[in-house]
Amino acid sequence: MASSSSSSTNLKIGIVGFGSFAQFLAKTMLKQGHFLRATSRSDHSELCLNLGVSFFSAFRDVEAFLGADNDVIMICTSIMSLTEVVKPMPLHCLKRPTLFVDVLSVKEFPKNFLLQVLPEESDLLCAHPMFGPESGKNGWKDLACIMLQMPCGEHDKMAARSQFLTHTIGRILYEMEINSTPMNTKGFESLLLLKENTVKDSFDLYSGLFLRNRYAKQELENLELAFNKVKQKLLDKMIYDQDIDDSMNNKERERN
Amino acid sequence: MASSSSSSTNLKIGIVGFGSFAQFLAKTMLKQGHFLRATSRSDHSELCLNLGVSFFSAFRDVEAFLGADNDVIMICTSIMSLTEVVKPMPLHCLKRPTLFVDVLSVKEFPKNFLLQVLPEESDLLCAHPMFGPESGKNGWKDLACIMLQMPCGEHDKMAARSQFLTHTIGRILYEMEINSTPMNTKGFESLLLLKENTVKDSFDLYSGLFLRNRYAKQELENLELAFNKVKQKLLDKMIYDQDIDDSMNNKERERN
Ligand SMILES: NC(=O)c1ccc[n+]([C@@H]2O[C@H](COP(=O)([O-])OP(=O)(O)OC[C@H]3O[C@@H](n4cnc5c(N)ncnc54)[C@H](OP(=O)(O)O)[C@@H]3O)[C@@H](O)[C@H]2O)c1
Ligand SMILES: NC(=O)c1ccc[n+]([C@@H]2O[C@H](COP(=O)([O-])OP(=O)(O)OC[C@H]3O[C@@H](n4cnc5c(N)ncnc54)[C@H](OP(=O)(O)O)[C@@H]3O)[C@@H](O)[C@H]2O)c1
Repeated sequence: MASSSSSSTNLKIGIVGFGSFAQFLAKTMLKQGHFLRATSRSDHSELCLNLGVSFFSAFRDVEAFLGADNDVIMICTSIMSLTEVVKPMPLHCLKRPTLFVDVLSVKEFPKNFLLQVLPEESDLLCAHPMFGPESGKNGWKDLACIMLQMPCGEHDKMAARSQFLTHTIGRILYEMEINSTPMNTKGFESLLLLKENTVKDSFDLYSGLFLRNRYAKQELENLELAFNKVKQKLLDKMIYDQDIDDSMNNKERERN
Repeated sequence: MASSSSSSTNLKIGIVGFGSFAQFLAKTMLKQGHFLRATSRSDHSELCLNLGVSFFSAFRDVEAFLGADNDVIMICTSIMSLTEVVKPMPLHCLKRPTLFVDVLSVKEFPKNFLLQVLPEESDLLCAHPMFGPESGKNGWKDLACIMLQMPCGEHDKMAARSQFLTHTIGRILYEMEINSTPMNTKGFESLLLLKENTVKDSFDLYSGLFLRNRYAKQELENLELAFNKVKQKLLDKMIYDQDIDDSMNNKERERN
């Protein structure tokens, strides 16, 4: 479904939702020579001016945004606001068939929703870039990214067991208020880093990973079950330890 | 309390408990030119022969081990077996005042116990090397280790919030059976590594971190509390989300 384009083609890309991830993507796409316009709930006009992106207010200028000549429209809103943002859009203003690309971190939900609301003649590419402003702060090239095609459901299943779980542990560590000590182990340092990186993403993003991925609830339960198993093993060992201790004390008493 | 020794001094070091951590330490100490002898529950005589360490069976040869000329005796047993190993030792066989060094990963417990049972004229250094066979597999030098002096209680408090917590999360991830996916994020990769490294340490070590550190139980509770907080935030968001959805549906119904 993707439109093919050589890296030398300059595309006209419209961005819906100019938050931190879209800004991060924009910087690279501008370097690649594409022409960008953006629309967003908040007023990002000053930032856009500095970057060289034309900004359209989501309240006054969406018609102009959609009516302009976009090869691609990238949907970069938060997971939780997708329907709220896209439903009221006057999509009849589109002048020609357009390739829509969504970058939401869950995939079944936007696919199902966008297939319902987008004009029939549009193309849709459901993508989840597996990096962000943090992991990609030195560019994407170091990350050795490859394009991986898979069913949306398979993505969500795997993402629940990996990304959602990782964010959950990062947020648990944040709630625990863990901090660097003068005696960090390497493992603990990796948890400190995880905590810091996780809370740089919005809670909106995190709750989207949970509420809009039907596999996430099960993984939250699996995490709780695993915690209880580990706890039980410690408690079993504690009881065993006390039994040993008691029998040693008894033996000592018998000897005296 | 430590005996001072320049790095050019060759020490005669006796090791009690020749498990994986002691073996790891031994390799470096041998390179530094020290003379090593070891005693252990299991028969490590063949390994010792290969390394150039004299081995004394814990059942037949402890008297000879203690009676030999040791500048230092390092206690490298598991936390859980410390008392069981040291209590029956015929410490009267020691020919002279000896510096004991324990390397257990908890500190109040061995300090209190060893001060009770070691001969009065011995010195005791309670140490916790913050690296192991994994993090130090390319030597200690890369780790930029520094010697940090602190009260044993302070150590245990910090270790419960850092090391014990890290091991607990590693073991939870192990119980969950997380595995690499074709779409790992950097954060998830650090958790995979943590899982793998954690379970390389024995469960005996892990349960010692819990049972012989009086601060650990509280941190296990803190982890559970933090988990419940994160879960509650997700459930709150879920309820809020359903309310929004209901009111949107109602509005739509009213409109029709
Ligand atoms: N961050 C990452 O590493 C990463 C990686 C891959 C994919 N993604 C995906 O990229 C998208 C954007 O992520 P993000 O990191 O920038 O943070 P985010 O919090 O998920 O999304 C922020 C964006 O959502 C918009 N938004 C939020 N609530 C809205 C509402 N009620 N009405 C209208 N717009 C609303 C914001 O608009 P304003 O700025 O105008 O307020 C902003 O553009 C998400 O779908 C996320 O899953 C993120
Ligand atoms: N691994 C690390 O990264 C690390 C780092 C710093 C400090 N430490 C500390 O170093 C010590 C050794 O750790 P480790 O990694 O080698 O693993 P461990 O499982 O904590 O200890 C293994 C050692 O304990 C002995 N042992 C266990 N149960 C025994 C029993 N019932 N009776 C007699 N001996 C028993 C074993 O003897 P046999 O081998 O003869 O069976 C072996 O020498 C621990 O106190 C640990 O806290 C470890």
